[in-house]
Amino acid sequence: MQQFDFSVRVYYEDTDAEGVVYYANYLKFLERARSEWLRQHDLPVSKLASQQHLIFVVRRVEIDYLQAARLDDLLSVSVVVKSLSKAGFVLEQQIKREDVILSKAILKMACLDATKFKPVRIPTEINRMINKEM
Amino acid sequence: MQQFDFSVRVYYEDTDAEGVVYYANYLKFLERARSEWLRQHDLPVSKLASQQHLIFVVRRVEIDYLQAARLDDLLSVSVVVKSLSKAGFVLEQQIKREDVILSKAILKMACLDATKFKPVRIPTEINRMINKEM
Amino acid sequence: MQQFDFSVRVYYEDTDAEGVVYYANYLKFLERARSEWLRQHDLPVSKLASQQHLIFVVRRVEIDYLQAARLDDLLSVSVVVKSLSKAGFVLEQQIKREDVILSKAILKMACLDATKFKPVRIPTEINRMINKEM
Amino acid sequence: MQQFDFSVRVYYEDTDAEGVVYYANYLKFLERARSEWLRQHDLPVSKLASQQHLIFVVRRVEIDYLQAARLDDLLSVSVVVKSLSKAGFVLEQQIKREDVILSKAILKMACLDATKFKPVRIPTEINRMINKEM
Repeated sequence: MQQFDFSVRVYYEDTDAEGVVYYANYLKFLERARSEWLRQHDLPVSKLASQQHLIFVVRRVEIDYLQAARLDDLLSVSVVVKSLSKAGFVLEQQIKREDVILSKAILKMACLDATKFKPVRIPTEINRMINKEM
Repeated sequence: MQQFDFSVRVYYEDTDAEGVVYYANYLKFLERARSEWLRQHDLPVSKLASQQHLIFVVRRVEIDYLQAARLDDLLSVSVVVKSLSKAGFVLEQQIKREDVILSKAILKMACLDATKFKPVRIPTEINRMINKEM
Repeated sequence: MQQFDFSVRVYYEDTDAEGVVYYANYLKFLERARSEWLRQHDLPVSKLASQQHLIFVVRRVEIDYLQAARLDDLLSVSVVVKSLSKAGFVLEQQIKREDVILSKAILKMACLDATKFKPVRIPTEINRMINKEM
Repeated sequence: MQQFDFSVRVYYEDTDAEGVVYYANYLKFLERARSEWLRQHDLPVSKLASQQHLIFVVRRVEIDYLQAARLDDLLSVSVVVKSLSKAGFVLEQQIKREDVILSKAILKMACLDATKFKPVRIPTEINRMINKEM
């Protein structure tokens, strides 16, 4: 099982009037880490869409907010593949500040045709790449 | 069981390069509906914070993305109370376009002290108000 | 000279850790008002793109931040056409809370082909519609 | 005259249904670069607020949108000090993709008391630090 980690800095744009990161914005951090995980495999999302005509979309999120992130925090966002099927996969993602887990999430991803938005099989080489990480 | 509904229009700011609403932004729509649900009970979030020194925060979200919302869509976002305890409550929220459910979510809410961010009891009158909706 | 007004409520998503609306988010409010101004003329932005194959894009913004908007504020956002040329127009937009002007902006808009992103002439009927408002 | 540069990657969250970065989001990129410029001077915005009880706020933005940024673009955002007064300063910021300027902006910044939101003098040591960059 491999873990990919990506650093995210908290700016004013991410916070709200409570002085902490707004709850929807953690999902942006999760998506940045997923995009970088794909880029690392030479599969940036723009190339996936233009060359393979595919997009990976989120079908379901379960996220627990354990502690709040604050302005200027340097966070670490992880991506771990939990399972893989023909047309999708499940990821576990955590957001940490040093050793403290702030949020943890399980995401169900689906592979869709980029224009018709219909489920399609994950191409063999991508399937193999995701499978190797489990 | 009472249901509160709030209308949300989709603007460019809500969409992404796939031409649909970005997955994190549905959580903004859910929060707008919750804020309006509280305002309807004469409990706008700013008053809750300044007068009662309380905030309601999201502890956990489970959200299923069934169909995508698009630019200019007029959505209806619902709030239904599912359960209530001393320091929190569970809400079910759906996002619809006409009769089609686009997303459905379960949210675990907690009542916190607005500065210390520590769990506190929901004040009696607010507890009663929430209880009436179940 | 006609003025179009649109109401915007401030939610947590709009605010930042200073307790006020984040400076970039006022531009979202301005855009919502412009979208509603077009919708009122039976020209919602999605129809403009799909049927006329046109988009109106912002070429330049000058915005003055005079006073801050806060959580739960009910704002009024105006749209006034200042000038019109073959391929663009200039708008003045203000954001008010009751009678207090919080921000005022001048926006230079251009009419582009929706896929090539090249400047095109504003179609006669739309030009006439915008011209009537001056 | 010194120039500070900061890299920003474009993610789905930044784009809109036109396939390009949403116009308000460029202001987020500008603010990230300003925050990093201050951090580099050992003045992260959270420390500025908590220790010096100060915030730097944007009073006016003039921004020209010359070309669009797109998904996965790696941008470079610059900060250059143009002028300095007792209670504020003027910055020039540009957003580039390689050698192409996508947007350029002039921002009028003010120094405020972090709670009263009233203009205050920039402390001597910070004034000196900003002055050195001109």
